[in-house]
Amino acid sequence: MAMTERVKQILSWYGSDSPGTKANLYRLLNTGRLAGTGKLVILPVDQGFEHGPARSFAPNPAGYDPEYHAQLAVDAGCNAYAAPLGFIEAVADKYAGQLPLILKVNNSDSLSKLGGAPISAVTSSVKDAIRLGCAAIGYTIYPGSDARNDQLEALRELTLEAKAAGLVVVTWSYPRGTGISKDGETAVDIAAYAAQIAAQMGSHIIKVKPPKPLVEHPEAKKVYEKYQIPIGTLSERVSHVVQSAFGGKRIVIFSGGEAKGTDEVLAELKEIAAGGGFGSIMGRNAFQRSRPDALKLLEAAMKIYGAP
Amino acid sequence: MAMTERVKQILSWYGSDSPGTKANLYRLLNTGRLAGTGKLVILPVDQGFEHGPARSFAPNPAGYDPEYHAQLAVDAGCNAYAAPLGFIEAVADKYAGQLPLILKVNNSDSLSKLGGAPISAVTSSVKDAIRLGCAAIGYTIYPGSDARNDQLEALRELTLEAKAAGLVVVTWSYPRGTGISKDGETAVDIAAYAAQIAAQMGSHIIKVKPPKPLVEHPEAKKVYEKYQIPIGTLSERVSHVVQSAFGGKRIVIFSGGEAKGTDEVLAELKEIAAGGGFGSIMGRNAFQRSRPDALKLLEAAMKIYGAP
Amino acid sequence: MAMTERVKQILSWYGSDSPGTKANLYRLLNTGRLAGTGKLVILPVDQGFEHGPARSFAPNPAGYDPEYHAQLAVDAGCNAYAAPLGFIEAVADKYAGQLPLILKVNNSDSLSKLGGAPISAVTSSVKDAIRLGCAAIGYTIYPGSDARNDQLEALRELTLEAKAAGLVVVTWSYPRGTGISKDGETAVDIAAYAAQIAAQMGSHIIKVKPPKPLVEHPEAKKVYEKYQIPIGTLSERVSHVVQSAFGGKRIVIFSGGEAKGTDEVLAELKEIAAGGGFGSIMGRNAFQRSRPDALKLLEAAMKIYGAP
Amino acid sequence: MAMTERVKQILSWYGSDSPGTKANLYRLLNTGRLAGTGKLVILPVDQGFEHGPARSFAPNPAGYDPEYHAQLAVDAGCNAYAAPLGFIEAVADKYAGQLPLILKVNNSDSLSKLGGAPISAVTSSVKDAIRLGCAAIGYTIYPGSDARNDQLEALRELTLEAKAAGLVVVTWSYPRGTGISKDGETAVDIAAYAAQIAAQMGSHIIKVKPPKPLVEHPEAKKVYEKYQIPIGTLSERVSHVVQSAFGGKRIVIFSGGEAKGTDEVLAELKEIAAGGGFGSIMGRNAFQRSRPDALKLLEAAMKIYGAP
Amino acid sequence: MAMTERVKQILSWYGSDSPGTKANLYRLLNTGRLAGTGKLVILPVDQGFEHGPARSFAPNPAGYDPEYHAQLAVDAGCNAYAAPLGFIEAVADKYAGQLPLILKVNNSDSLSKLGGAPISAVTSSVKDAIRLGCAAIGYTIYPGSDARNDQLEALRELTLEAKAAGLVVVTWSYPRGTGISKDGETAVDIAAYAAQIAAQMGSHIIKVKPPKPLVEHPEAKKVYEKYQIPIGTLSERVSHVVQSAFGGKRIVIFSGGEAKGTDEVLAELKEIAAGGGFGSIMGRNAFQRSRPDALKLLEAAMKIYGAP
Repeated sequence: MAMTERVKQILSWYGSDSPGTKANLYRLLNTGRLAGTGKLVILPVDQGFEHGPARSFAPNPAGYDPEYHAQLAVDAGCNAYAAPLGFIEAVADKYAGQLPLILKVNNSDSLSKLGGAPISAVTSSVKDAIRLGCAAIGYTIYPGSDARNDQLEALRELTLEAKAAGLVVVTWSYPRGTGISKDGETAVDIAAYAAQIAAQMGSHIIKVKPPKPLVEHPEAKKVYEKYQIPIGTLSERVSHVVQSAFGGKRIVIFSGGEAKGTDEVLAELKEIAAGGGFGSIMGRNAFQRSRPDALKLLEAAMKIYGAP
Repeated sequence: MAMTERVKQILSWYGSDSPGTKANLYRLLNTGRLAGTGKLVILPVDQGFEHGPARSFAPNPAGYDPEYHAQLAVDAGCNAYAAPLGFIEAVADKYAGQLPLILKVNNSDSLSKLGGAPISAVTSSVKDAIRLGCAAIGYTIYPGSDARNDQLEALRELTLEAKAAGLVVVTWSYPRGTGISKDGETAVDIAAYAAQIAAQMGSHIIKVKPPKPLVEHPEAKKVYEKYQIPIGTLSERVSHVVQSAFGGKRIVIFSGGEAKGTDEVLAELKEIAAGGGFGSIMGRNAFQRSRPDALKLLEAAMKIYGAP
Repeated sequence: MAMTERVKQILSWYGSDSPGTKANLYRLLNTGRLAGTGKLVILPVDQGFEHGPARSFAPNPAGYDPEYHAQLAVDAGCNAYAAPLGFIEAVADKYAGQLPLILKVNNSDSLSKLGGAPISAVTSSVKDAIRLGCAAIGYTIYPGSDARNDQLEALRELTLEAKAAGLVVVTWSYPRGTGISKDGETAVDIAAYAAQIAAQMGSHIIKVKPPKPLVEHPEAKKVYEKYQIPIGTLSERVSHVVQSAFGGKRIVIFSGGEAKGTDEVLAELKEIAAGGGFGSIMGRNAFQRSRPDALKLLEAAMKIYGAP
Repeated sequence: MAMTERVKQILSWYGSDSPGTKANLYRLLNTGRLAGTGKLVILPVDQGFEHGPARSFAPNPAGYDPEYHAQLAVDAGCNAYAAPLGFIEAVADKYAGQLPLILKVNNSDSLSKLGGAPISAVTSSVKDAIRLGCAAIGYTIYPGSDARNDQLEALRELTLEAKAAGLVVVTWSYPRGTGISKDGETAVDIAAYAAQIAAQMGSHIIKVKPPKPLVEHPEAKKVYEKYQIPIGTLSERVSHVVQSAFGGKRIVIFSGGEAKGTDEVLAELKEIAAGGGFGSIMGRNAFQRSRPDALKLLEAAMKIYGAP
Repeated sequence: MAMTERVKQILSWYGSDSPGTKANLYRLLNTGRLAGTGKLVILPVDQGFEHGPARSFAPNPAGYDPEYHAQLAVDAGCNAYAAPLGFIEAVADKYAGQLPLILKVNNSDSLSKLGGAPISAVTSSVKDAIRLGCAAIGYTIYPGSDARNDQLEALRELTLEAKAAGLVVVTWSYPRGTGISKDGETAVDIAAYAAQIAAQMGSHIIKVKPPKPLVEHPEAKKVYEKYQIPIGTLSERVSHVVQSAFGGKRIVIFSGGEAKGTDEVLAELKEIAAGGGFGSIMGRNAFQRSRPDALKLLEAAMKIYGAP
């Protein structure tokens, strides 16, 4: 497939990256049904690690088998598949060529119930991503949490190493911590700040949660009011968050969160698309449905983002 | 001995591994009485480090001598022998060729009685495993404990290094910590989660304790009930744990625990075998018996797993 | 442009540095309207990271786009542009040749409200500065804070690595901590001490805040009184701070602080210039104004420092 | 001197070691009056560091001079001389050829009186041992103490590095900590456990304190009683400790402790020899006596161990 | 100048050092007015870092300029000049050939007033010393303080690296901590112990404070009384401290402390010289005097140590 103007434009924002990294960005943007549109729908399966196997896969037991997910991503026409080391290793030998793989290099589990923000363990490395033919690494930061500096410094090292290896860096940016209320974690100012930090860290693709119509920090509130930044609708808030990532020059995608009804999922995606969001990452809403239902939902999602 | 279909199938699950690692997996699966069956019985002797010499070896004083155990493993037809550095070093020069050795690279002792989950010291390294001709390294993690992240990150490094050296990684996964009750440490949801985490970390072989008919976490309980996951018999629980390790595509073996009567041991093994468990690791039940009794017990165990 | 006598003199103070570092110092001193004067006006844009995107860029939304700032620095005739990794990466490919770039390698954010002095995360590295064609790295230390030793030791490593790569080291030196009152953070003795420490760490360019007519430490107070060190006017205090950085043989520049009125900004600059300050670093006062206003202010600032 | 059968036998227990390490073990076993007997008497002088110079050397001021000790070891016919970096460096150039040197790479001092078990600083390295022509490194661990894991992990690194350099590893194993009573530190079960841990860590030579007729841990007590392990006499306890170090296949030597009367020292040595101990390490009892008295005592000690 | 017998003798104590390190020791002993005598007077200027610029240099403002000190050291005929990175860098290009430079690689400041012993930051490195043509590195340890192990381990690394680069190691040994009273920090037993520890760490030159007629530790007191160690006069105490550093086979020099009257300074030096001290390190007493007064004092000091 020839490079579209839109993909060319997006790649132009990453001018300081090496040809290797640009090639992997190109692969992510040119795979699946959304190839060439500049939009992405990614299948992530880290729930087995994060919530345990039964809570993740009992609703659709085919999902215990790592191959199920890779094949689902291919058949649904996703741009990429993201998972922890074990799941990636189980499929890389067969799928790395046809499906861009994102190695999720840190993870947390829910076996321990410590207070405070989660602190993920770094469970794999850039070296693993290289040997497994991955296109990208994925890393979660919790800006605002006590461990944020350790996380940013680990991300710095991983980013430098990934770029030197021609890989793309995808950052999950989830604000937390004692300075942020539970609701405020997805407040629009906090989500915009989360996107800014991930962008300043040198990430190529940034994943945030859909922002709520709420401004958390008082100093920020003054500014949102003074300059009348529109945040009433989800599409307006998405638009603000995208702007906050270098005036729209970084790829920002949004997560779907907990499993929910098809209509609800699609309504949210329409708002994200209308606000200029670059796509979605859809996990539980995909792999916990039966395979036919998942394929149907993913097709509908991609259509919203402009798939033919 | 020619490669059996079953071994071929098992090796196919590890497609992303190097020929070196596959060769060592092959050695583990093709040594001893169970060669070619896809099942394993492994002799581990780390009790001297964990409980002290007299508590470990006074019942059968021949066991003070490291050579005793290696010879026992060979004579009984075990698939492998696992021990800490000192014990492996004492026999590697003579046995590394005929018996796959698993270097247990972390250990804890019982000289200190700190509260909380044990924190093992890393007592040897992949470099040691290489120079001693070992087939695998073994590492214990305590998911759920406060130190879990340090342990997972150490395991990540060791796993990467081991795979680069063509070694197999065996992970002992023992959940602990303030979020888990004492009984819950071997609850079926916890054991299944322990197997999942070890698998996601990229381990080739996973050792867990036989699971009890108990679901520890409330969120998990809802799922087990809703989807009616059968956990009434040990064989059902073993089956669920094996499924939780990538739909049965990772080798999961079970420990025997404290020394106990022969009938009790064999009854448990039958359930594990019926549930699709890949084998057992038998320590105190072997080396604390007299040599003739140990040989007899190990032979019976292997027969249960299908040895001719 | 031929080397001026003043630039030659300044370079002579850095005799132990490599030709590579001297060449980058030369670039910093010979770029823009102040080229050859030995004075510098630098545009720094780390507010997006430090205060969040809306608080930084809503007043002048063109600033969400990283390219805006680099172009502003070029058009205004600044000596250099300083920013975190993301902002530098977004422009380096296009601007590194025409505009000296200073990679600000540590940053703190305001998402968390911990008590005590801020602890910046190291967010990029000398290796990043090299691959992005930067002329310098920038690093903030908080002398007097609990984490000062970690910061000085990180600065030591970065400085050694930067010098080996022919880069210039710019240190932001902001005293903090339980031994210093809030007001005392910009007391003249503290500012002078901050400059001395940065100089002793081997920094080439030192940034401090304009000092106030106040002596914080009692032991210092005795000395200021006994030797009648003049600190009544800002220019006298600037002069003392410059003297405190190796008798004037290190480049010391001053920050502008919060956005404020044009007259106020220029009055302060005149005092700094009169006291022998080597220049200013002007962020919010520049990029939060409209482009025409910013260009006008920067031109006026440079005229004060002797631009033709 | 030709290799004796006994030395050949001892070397056979270290079959996985390199020829370089075996050569240094050979040197240790074939130097001095006890050459070829398989027994060792070693002179250690780390008291200057541990207790300060006056408390160590005022009784015999010739000992302030490092050369005094090396010459004493040579003249008395010791197998080796052990000391911290400074003392070894002061004599290595002259003595490394004629006298096996053991670089004691960690030390603690008595300037600070912190509660809890001592935490030694690592004061020199394998690289120092190599450049100074040493035959071995010495390292102290405190099993049971809070810092035991750090110590075991440091020992692991040092051991791996030492073996790669053909050096011998001598481990001082002194149990401590909140789980052990003061008296229990030299209880027979604890001493046996200390020997086992050092052996499992891969040490070639293990130094423990002479064990007392006391079993510290209740779980161990049951075993000692059930299997009627004889611990009534010092020779019986020494025999048990030696057995606990791989059935007698690791060299275990015993310390003398505080300076005491000649008869008392020799009586203890006879018991150690009778129990199959491999020798003694004699510090204060040697260098705090006058040179003639020290030579006399050391000669008597060696005779007990079988010197001609 | 030909090598004197005394310098030859001193160098013979460092037989295990490389020719490179011996050459730099030779340079230190053969520079200035005391060349060849085996005695040293060193000019140290780390006060700017430790106490701040005004407190250090206001009494003699010429001292703000780093070149002032290097030239003073040359003109006074000092053996060497010691300072932190910034001050050394400012003069190395011009002075490294004619004046042995000692890079003081750790420093503490007085901006923070934490309780407990100071914890210095490591502010430069052996690599810096090499690129700046220094003859030695200088490092401060605080034996007895809580952070002593970190300091000893950092010193170990620096010492190994310095020796491999042919540099000399100068250790400032200042006991502190909760086990030592304020007065006791310079008690004679503590000073002797401080010298012993620095010597055992492998230091070539040891700097301690002049000891007071006081024995701090009860166990030491018994020994000083039993063996009637003379400590009544400063020269006796100096003699004991020198003996405590390997029987006089390590170079021990003494600090002058706070600025004081000329007579007082010289009286102290005479006692140090009479006790066999190897010299003095004179900072504030030199650079806070006017240049003519400083030259006069330094000349008088050197005469006491035997300068012609």
